[in-house]
Amino acid sequence: MALVDNQSGLFTDHYELTMAQGYFLSGMQDTSARFDYFFRKAPFKGSYVVFAGLQNLLEMLSGFQYDKNACDFLRQRGFNPEFIDYLGHFRFSGDVWSAAEGEIVFPFEPVLSVEGNIIECQLIESMLLNILNFESLIATKASRMKHAAGDKQFIEFGLRRAQGTGGIQASRAAVIGGASGTSNMLAAYQYGLVSTGTQAHSWIQSFDDELTAFREFAKAFPDRCILLVDTYNTLCTGVPNAIKVGLEMEQKGHRLLGIRLDSGDIAYLSKQARKMLNKAGLEYVKIVASNQLDEYVIRSLNEQDAPIDAYGVGTNLITGRDDAALDGVYKLVFSNGRERLKISDNIEKMVLPGKKRVFRFTDEQGSLYADGISLDSEDEFDTICHPFHSEKCSEVSNLKREEIVQKVMERGKTMITSKNPYDIAAFATERIKQLPAEHKRFEFPHIYKVGITGKLMEKRNTLLMEIRKEL
Amino acid sequence: MALVDNQSGLFTDHYELTMAQGYFLSGMQDTSARFDYFFRKAPFKGSYVVFAGLQNLLEMLSGFQYDKNACDFLRQRGFNPEFIDYLGHFRFSGDVWSAAEGEIVFPFEPVLSVEGNIIECQLIESMLLNILNFESLIATKASRMKHAAGDKQFIEFGLRRAQGTGGIQASRAAVIGGASGTSNMLAAYQYGLVSTGTQAHSWIQSFDDELTAFREFAKAFPDRCILLVDTYNTLCTGVPNAIKVGLEMEQKGHRLLGIRLDSGDIAYLSKQARKMLNKAGLEYVKIVASNQLDEYVIRSLNEQDAPIDAYGVGTNLITGRDDAALDGVYKLVFSNGRERLKISDNIEKMVLPGKKRVFRFTDEQGSLYADGISLDSEDEFDTICHPFHSEKCSEVSNLKREEIVQKVMERGKTMITSKNPYDIAAFATERIKQLPAEHKRFEFPHIYKVGITGKLMEKRNTLLMEIRKEL
Repeated sequence: MALVDNQSGLFTDHYELTMAQGYFLSGMQDTSARFDYFFRKAPFKGSYVVFAGLQNLLEMLSGFQYDKNACDFLRQRGFNPEFIDYLGHFRFSGDVWSAAEGEIVFPFEPVLSVEGNIIECQLIESMLLNILNFESLIATKASRMKHAAGDKQFIEFGLRRAQGTGGIQASRAAVIGGASGTSNMLAAYQYGLVSTGTQAHSWIQSFDDELTAFREFAKAFPDRCILLVDTYNTLCTGVPNAIKVGLEMEQKGHRLLGIRLDSGDIAYLSKQARKMLNKAGLEYVKIVASNQLDEYVIRSLNEQDAPIDAYGVGTNLITGRDDAALDGVYKLVFSNGRERLKISDNIEKMVLPGKKRVFRFTDEQGSLYADGISLDSEDEFDTICHPFHSEKCSEVSNLKREEIVQKVMERGKTMITSKNPYDIAAFATERIKQLPAEHKRFEFPHIYKVGITGKLMEKRNTLLMEIRKEL
Repeated sequence: MALVDNQSGLFTDHYELTMAQGYFLSGMQDTSARFDYFFRKAPFKGSYVVFAGLQNLLEMLSGFQYDKNACDFLRQRGFNPEFIDYLGHFRFSGDVWSAAEGEIVFPFEPVLSVEGNIIECQLIESMLLNILNFESLIATKASRMKHAAGDKQFIEFGLRRAQGTGGIQASRAAVIGGASGTSNMLAAYQYGLVSTGTQAHSWIQSFDDELTAFREFAKAFPDRCILLVDTYNTLCTGVPNAIKVGLEMEQKGHRLLGIRLDSGDIAYLSKQARKMLNKAGLEYVKIVASNQLDEYVIRSLNEQDAPIDAYGVGTNLITGRDDAALDGVYKLVFSNGRERLKISDNIEKMVLPGKKRVFRFTDEQGSLYADGISLDSEDEFDTICHPFHSEKCSEVSNLKREEIVQKVMERGKTMITSKNPYDIAAFATERIKQLPAEHKRFEFPHIYKVGITGKLMEKRNTLLMEIRKEL
């Protein structure tokens, strides 16, 4: 199921269509182009990004089209009739190279590249950025929560505070980053995710007292009963009533699965609740915690040895708080037989021109050491250098190398099979394990090396000089 | 067009379905219930919210259903077969009261209420919160930008950094809050929004030089040509080339519409560019500015008298940065013939029980003075008091009063006609004008009075004492 079913071709910015019409009217519909997708800064003050969104992007590219309604709409908006006819028959027929979904990627490396005629490459820009930026943001946030949660589960609960229907994509991305499941039924349906959820305060309140509410729930769900214990008073009524119901369930041959804490000091309450449950012989009853959790609160709860078995995380995960967006961009690097370069007063905003390859270097222990970007024509090189400080170089000849960006679409046809989000998550987990701890810490993580080859640097510098001369 | 076309009934959290099944199995399908939607804190450290999302919500409620695929999915997930049969025939048939879309609303007041059987009220919770929280967040952010921009236009440009498909709703909400248009074509198509957009750096780069790129664009769009001038060097090449093309256009009987600045110091560059354009006799050419704008940067540019005619705003608007979500909640206030109250250790989290009405009080000059919440049964009252500090009261008998929450859906049928987003925006603008300046300032805005009547307070306190006695 694609993200936007009928009007996929309109899932773009006005200026993409304006430019496409401009290229069309300038007779450039066969001009070749290549664009790179990359980001300049990892979100959340971190060092890495979990790349997500590829599958949704490929589906959208496969179905990208303008139906009669779309063409009528563009006519009303004053677009050129011949150009609209062209769009009426338009299908994306370009090539795409990409890192695998779930791959760990780093600033400045071309994670994904698109090659085709300049019109098709341009038209898909906004959609591509929208999907990859957002899904990668959420997968990255989730992977930080997984890092904090250690061997404890965390579940994505955020639909009610998600940014509209974007929440559906976000639930999938959260699973890719490490969430064990979601509360979001539509995401579970569309993407085959594990869904979970028990009761809200309204359940408790809709009965005349808490004990009756708990008993009725236990009767309806004897084998998956988790009781929310904070509606009135967690330790005075909630936990004692849950214990009472738990013991009644035992007598009927069932077991209370858990209790959920959703307010107050979770560290304190979980310890008290654990003691009370254990004293009653309910050691097997799990404790689930929710309420404004993020990776820092989860870390703190773990450091305090709070006896919590699973975390439910909402707003901070589903919206990628505190970074609303990943700053990924899509830049022209090649067109009409020439490498292209956008120069800038800010050297770090400069683009790496032309077709390139991305290699990953791993040491003997299997730890990630560095990534290296080369010209398309080279695969043998011994050193990589910092893209802006050419004096900083690293020897990579003795390391295991692997090419991490591969062709995934040819002439508009997807070349890879669709994967289950949990398989993608397993790959992400493996990669995160390979990443040394210093790159994963939350405070001032060590920057991962992304270098370029001498030949690529030479090409960029030559092109830069040419442009400066022309100006 | 509804937000979620086919699987609307699954656009919910797992626990809503679990609870619904629980109510069903407990024989409570005819138990009446009423839920209030309200928020506790205005976002962006502001005092108010521009209420948005009502139209999308009503459409979703009208179409809320479980088709065969949804029922099969729920069967696989272990839901009860009789309950699934019930869902197969389910349609939302409740009543909804709401503030008008575009209304200015404040913390703690019940902006929207739903009444029906407890199952239907529960099932729609997550969807309702998702839509209202997000669209209101973005409309509010946009209204702050409008406040900062004064009589200058601002355009929403954020699709590429939006949170997935949520960006489509966000563009509509941005217009409700005051954006004059959007770059997002799908939102423009679905909601009848003005769309705009000219060229990106890739247009400039895909030609061998900037001047050719400008000329080709002017040729393709002789009457709506805005040139992006920062690809190489704004003042050395971009503006001079734009002036050259602008003069050439004059000779052909056309006029260059504008230039766009997208990097560097916008205040400085706009002043220099304005001088250069004027000196060449191109006083009519507009200057559009973009690049990481928010309400504070716009205010600062205006304070510096930067000669900017229109602002293009992206990420900060479309994601509602720095508040990822509005904290709106949906709480049970009445069920099975009884008022309901969720108490809490935090007194400010306490809910106002029962059916209520919301009045707005305006002074002789038409300025908003306060809102007052009463019991459903009363409309004559002279004073309103602070909900948590009963000694703080205000006399409202001499003020004009207006009931701002009205019935909008009866037995599942929408009672209001769908409105154009620009009409909703005009209403929001009127309301914002009525709001005194001290509530609109960005730094420590004065809190707007929202009081409750003595009778409502009495009812709440009585209920509170009853619950405490029961505990």
